[in-house]
Amino acid sequence: MAAQIVENEEPQLPQILIHRLPSFDLPFKAQLVTRFRLIDPYASSDPTAFFSSPQAQSVRVLLPVGPSPVTADTLRCLPSLQCVIGSSAGVDHIDLAECRRRGIAVTNAGSAFSEDVADYAVGLLIDVLRRLSAADRYVRSGSWPVKGEYPLGSKLGGKRVGIVGLGSIGYEIAKRLEAFGCSIAYNSRKKKPSVLFPFHENVCSLAANSDVLIICCALTNETHHLINKDVMTALGKEGVIINIGRGALINEKEMVQFLVQGEIKGAGLDVFENEPNVPKELFELDNVVLSPHRAVLTPESFTTLYEVVMANLDAFFSNKPLVSPVDLE
Amino acid sequence: MAAQIVENEEPQLPQILIHRLPSFDLPFKAQLVTRFRLIDPYASSDPTAFFSSPQAQSVRVLLPVGPSPVTADTLRCLPSLQCVIGSSAGVDHIDLAECRRRGIAVTNAGSAFSEDVADYAVGLLIDVLRRLSAADRYVRSGSWPVKGEYPLGSKLGGKRVGIVGLGSIGYEIAKRLEAFGCSIAYNSRKKKPSVLFPFHENVCSLAANSDVLIICCALTNETHHLINKDVMTALGKEGVIINIGRGALINEKEMVQFLVQGEIKGAGLDVFENEPNVPKELFELDNVVLSPHRAVLTPESFTTLYEVVMANLDAFFSNKPLVSPVDLE
Repeated sequence: MAAQIVENEEPQLPQILIHRLPSFDLPFKAQLVTRFRLIDPYASSDPTAFFSSPQAQSVRVLLPVGPSPVTADTLRCLPSLQCVIGSSAGVDHIDLAECRRRGIAVTNAGSAFSEDVADYAVGLLIDVLRRLSAADRYVRSGSWPVKGEYPLGSKLGGKRVGIVGLGSIGYEIAKRLEAFGCSIAYNSRKKKPSVLFPFHENVCSLAANSDVLIICCALTNETHHLINKDVMTALGKEGVIINIGRGALINEKEMVQFLVQGEIKGAGLDVFENEPNVPKELFELDNVVLSPHRAVLTPESFTTLYEVVMANLDAFFSNKPLVSPVDLE
Repeated sequence: MAAQIVENEEPQLPQILIHRLPSFDLPFKAQLVTRFRLIDPYASSDPTAFFSSPQAQSVRVLLPVGPSPVTADTLRCLPSLQCVIGSSAGVDHIDLAECRRRGIAVTNAGSAFSEDVADYAVGLLIDVLRRLSAADRYVRSGSWPVKGEYPLGSKLGGKRVGIVGLGSIGYEIAKRLEAFGCSIAYNSRKKKPSVLFPFHENVCSLAANSDVLIICCALTNETHHLINKDVMTALGKEGVIINIGRGALINEKEMVQFLVQGEIKGAGLDVFENEPNVPKELFELDNVVLSPHRAVLTPESFTTLYEVVMANLDAFFSNKPLVSPVDLE
């Protein structure tokens, strides 16, 4: 079995266990294989066999590809595991509580995706406010010559944008939206001393003082359904929500109701609670833009992602501090 | 007849002739009427009657609403005309050659629309590169759960953006795109001494050195079909065109061919040669975003537009320099 799933048998090389969904390829395998001994159970017909093999006992580093779930069960099969090198921005697919309990370090993609996600968030916001996707549908359906002028959207400049989670993605969004003349405020676990934007200790207060909420915090037990009916009521009828974080950051059922009843003005949604399923009620609405979890990155950013992954691997194997550790506290 | 079409009969007030298509209302009539004697032939059942009336002989100021055509025929009926106060960004609906010949001054909306148009141009560009509208169609059609992951788009940061026409709209676009990490170059009638972006004397050279061309110059005899097959060949297979200027700035027939054959990568089009008609071939393409001439402005910008129009009227009637004159040379 081992011969099928191990790439580069050179015994003195550091060893990495690849963990992936069958549909995901390791994006930079060709580069990794020159420096590491890669074990890829999914290259065999029975991936689970590896996890009960003696080899699993010695695995120190796990490299999950994209959103491949790293459950407590998986972790239990790897008693020597010391580090999970994540290659995504959010790490809610990794059982962080179990990692914390076991003292396993976790890294994420650092800021490799931040620019792409920020670009997408701004794109969704312009789209919702100025109705780009809806206008495109209007033209393609042949309505323009028949029904005449399409309604004007609303202006981006001057909007008060509340950023929920001012990490590297939130910061990139703020930087961009300032160039459009928006004012920025934010909510985070704690106030960031180096940041001049106004801080709101709770999301309701941020929502009450914002025209737009952009959700880009991590999904944890604490942030699950952070955006609920109270927050949306505070945001109000003219308010817009952009979600490029995770679907479950919003109580989706409540949001759908608010959108359908016009209790908020619109939404740009890249993520959903039960992907790839999107609430059907949203398909009928022209004030929402629906995107299939594509804010994440572009092919151009794979190089940056590769650099972050390599830097974390190098740091781990030379006992130096990891470059993009996830705070497990 | 006069009684029906004149608002505010106060004889000592300065007089303005409103010129509008029947479908367009004067957006700030309530404010204008307190300060001016407004003549609005379209308030009567026979608008043409006014133009052959003795009253037409004394009209000094014409205020066309939106894109209402000001033809040589119209101008001929107004022998005392001294000034056309435009309320749009582009003034290709006004016979500028005839105005120049007669020494009639023309103003436009100045920079009242610049921010809105720039926002829209950036929105179209993100949409084309990151495939927002196409992804929204993918989700709405129910394809996500069936066909799986939607292809990733391409990165905005690092793109070389060539701006064709660096007026106030082009400048606002450049300011925004710099915040996304794009590099900017431009083509204009002449190099602008105060601008640090690289200048290209001809559009082909700009296209050859750009990943994206954003068309935002005025439509004149000189710029008609400025973007032709030579420019698109120079832009190349990976190139994207955004047009928020006028449809006829591009040879539309050639562009459709380039898009259909994959000779350029994509386009975001707010304007077309024969509006509201859009070439049907484009409806089938996922690499184009089609918009029904809506970049123009948002309701929030009407206040700014009103201020520009009033400032021009005040300037004219007090013999001061107009605030946003169109260069007729």
